[in-house]
Amino acid sequence: MNNIGVIGMGVMGRNIAFNMANHGFKVGIFNRTYRVTQEIMEKHVQNIEGYEHLEDMIASLESPKKVFLMVPAGEVVDYMIDTILPLLSEGDILMDGGNSFFEDTNRRHDKCESYGIHYYGVGVSGGEEGALKGPSIMPGGDIAHYGEIAPILESIAAHKEDDACCCYIGPKGAGHYVKMVHNGIEYADMQLLAEVYLIFKYVNQCTNSEIADILEQWQQRDVSSYLVDITIKVLREKDHATDADLIDVILDVAGNKGTGRWTSIEALRQEYNASLLTSAYQARIMSNQLKLRETFKDVVDTGFTRISSEDVYKAYALSKTLAFMQGFGLYQDASERYGWNLNLEKIASIFRAGCIIQAKLLQEIMSCYASGYASLWDYPRVKERIILNNSALKNVVVAGLNGALALPVFTNAMLYLTQISTGHLGANLIQGQRDYFGAHTYQRVDKEGFEHHDWSNND
Amino acid sequence: MNNIGVIGMGVMGRNIAFNMANHGFKVGIFNRTYRVTQEIMEKHVQNIEGYEHLEDMIASLESPKKVFLMVPAGEVVDYMIDTILPLLSEGDILMDGGNSFFEDTNRRHDKCESYGIHYYGVGVSGGEEGALKGPSIMPGGDIAHYGEIAPILESIAAHKEDDACCCYIGPKGAGHYVKMVHNGIEYADMQLLAEVYLIFKYVNQCTNSEIADILEQWQQRDVSSYLVDITIKVLREKDHATDADLIDVILDVAGNKGTGRWTSIEALRQEYNASLLTSAYQARIMSNQLKLRETFKDVVDTGFTRISSEDVYKAYALSKTLAFMQGFGLYQDASERYGWNLNLEKIASIFRAGCIIQAKLLQEIMSCYASGYASLWDYPRVKERIILNNSALKNVVVAGLNGALALPVFTNAMLYLTQISTGHLGANLIQGQRDYFGAHTYQRVDKEGFEHHDWSNND
Repeated sequence: MNNIGVIGMGVMGRNIAFNMANHGFKVGIFNRTYRVTQEIMEKHVQNIEGYEHLEDMIASLESPKKVFLMVPAGEVVDYMIDTILPLLSEGDILMDGGNSFFEDTNRRHDKCESYGIHYYGVGVSGGEEGALKGPSIMPGGDIAHYGEIAPILESIAAHKEDDACCCYIGPKGAGHYVKMVHNGIEYADMQLLAEVYLIFKYVNQCTNSEIADILEQWQQRDVSSYLVDITIKVLREKDHATDADLIDVILDVAGNKGTGRWTSIEALRQEYNASLLTSAYQARIMSNQLKLRETFKDVVDTGFTRISSEDVYKAYALSKTLAFMQGFGLYQDASERYGWNLNLEKIASIFRAGCIIQAKLLQEIMSCYASGYASLWDYPRVKERIILNNSALKNVVVAGLNGALALPVFTNAMLYLTQISTGHLGANLIQGQRDYFGAHTYQRVDKEGFEHHDWSNND
Repeated sequence: MNNIGVIGMGVMGRNIAFNMANHGFKVGIFNRTYRVTQEIMEKHVQNIEGYEHLEDMIASLESPKKVFLMVPAGEVVDYMIDTILPLLSEGDILMDGGNSFFEDTNRRHDKCESYGIHYYGVGVSGGEEGALKGPSIMPGGDIAHYGEIAPILESIAAHKEDDACCCYIGPKGAGHYVKMVHNGIEYADMQLLAEVYLIFKYVNQCTNSEIADILEQWQQRDVSSYLVDITIKVLREKDHATDADLIDVILDVAGNKGTGRWTSIEALRQEYNASLLTSAYQARIMSNQLKLRETFKDVVDTGFTRISSEDVYKAYALSKTLAFMQGFGLYQDASERYGWNLNLEKIASIFRAGCIIQAKLLQEIMSCYASGYASLWDYPRVKERIILNNSALKNVVVAGLNGALALPVFTNAMLYLTQISTGHLGANLIQGQRDYFGAHTYQRVDKEGFEHHDWSNND
């Protein structure tokens, strides 16, 4: 009998299956087109058995049956659930490892539970390589049966020292929610690194290789991360066709698969300001505005100011911290809003290896929650970074303005800090306007309660 | 027989009913609690008849019956529709004048049409006073029957010269969509005026009255608008209790009713960057973070730079233009996305009076579309303003940074222009990273198509 079935043999599904097989689990695999399954079987991987018919694959599983879906998010998942449900019995387990929207997972969970099937929305981060060698895994669903899937998921997950980068996240769609915001943080950090690149290249006139040298020094410091590491590799890579630096032949237009957009939308739905994450997504939109960019090229006046590498470092360390804080702030808000009881220390812990946002900073975040602080804002190390680095961040933003460089996440990081720090936001004027035209009332500085002013002498 | 029935006697519904009655239409009114209806009847307003029972009010209407709902957006609307539908006959007309979400209006439209009832989602802007004296009205629904409601709606609407500020907008929820984005633009312009106030008060150390004097000069120029006008009135108002300037006793915390949030969410769903509108909504969220604001007060280092009033004027004129452009860009995108065939010239036209965002700028927007330009970006006057004013905008943003003042919409306006104008967004680095960890491919600068780089020598 097979221990688990994996459905969907795209690169992620295939690598997850190999990963399970490598850890000694017997894996039944199924793909919509059998040809792909045959190709995989031709590699004669131990512990992997391919099936032409879904029924046969499901029948090959030990009870309670465990099925892991790795198919494109969206209607395909609903279709597969409808196809598989009749083949399962009460107590069997169905997992969705794709990037499904968490509210779809909520709905699918309830549907499957009504058939007695335990449904888990499983966030998986780490890309192709992570799927094969150990991803970060975020399972959400019924805690009572998590023990039945834990041995497989925790075996195949990345490990940081002795800790598996996988833990039970929370009910229903909580795992997919945590994965979604993970990707929102990822967008922000990628954009910040793009802005670091722009500053060094166009303000300080560095070569790609000089920028990589600087980032290598950064890897010895607090900002060390997987994304900094691959940025160095991207900057050092040669184009196979022209022998130019690869970075110089890549078109300046970014794609996206939607999770950064979803995170931004959910932040708004939660009435939570995740401006660093949102501006990172908006930056990708803007890069696609090729016609406008051509028409208005160089319309903004420009000057040049050099900026010290140490200021850029400090600005990056602070902005990256704020991006993670907005992401973890979303977790905290969602946990209360949806009653998920998320363990933020554990979430930080499982991001430490396997996933795209793995970074030294996560150790700090773990320590913060482990020390009993309710929020990163209260953590002395974070407060200190805000106090020590905010001038450097301002210098970077000003250098961007002077150099007519767009630094949306650095700029929104500065804005966010300033919004918190300034005593005056002008919201009193907005409340005055709202009360004037819509009788929306306002609060006063000198007493409690809401008041409406009689504006009638102005009519 | 009554010409129309109005349901919901809150301040907006009551004023709409009075407005209709003042224009000679016989209006039947109904409110959930009869007491309110009785109070209105005690004023003996001509052409208004109150009813204790909904059935009697509906029975009093001439055929085809026209019912105008002015109840709180949300489930109350669905409840009222279910209550009224059995009382109506095929060909009757039901209108929802509240701030309903446009997709709810799509759904309600289809439901009512299945009963042969013509349903209109009617955006109404102008607050209490507009409702009474002439609002801007944005009806969406079946164009074939618009002629039956046009005489009433166009009579009660505001007028700009001889044009009614009301026109057929588009199918189903198109009217409520246009109203929603109207409010998004409103949030941005209100926030910009709050930022203008902050700059004059805390950078240039002006008194409230001096700021009002400056804004009065602005009212003679291109930025003239209702919101500038009421800002002047708010700045000059005295507190009845303390004799201080009212603005100084209003708490620096802004409320919102959700439409700015909805606009921001829809922009993201449309994958459209409406950063000025979004940052204005986010600014309202931030003003509510009282605990954080107290903890981190003055943590951002500050200096002082004075700035010329003319620079502030130019920055405001440009940023306000960009905010309207993002709003009208959303209309254009939604029109194509939903097949609404929106007439942007007419939309600009009906915003010229009655509504909160009425402004001289709308005349420019009308002229742009009337002259056949596809977009405001192509309009010479807009291009000129971008070229002439962007340095002033940069000066204002830098003054904000130096003074540790949060200017989110000015800052995001500068960012938006810079994103369009700079030749380098760093998206090439992001595409390199994405291809590295997820095989997401990239485009090249030197040929068409998507490529995946072989990164294997890095493993």
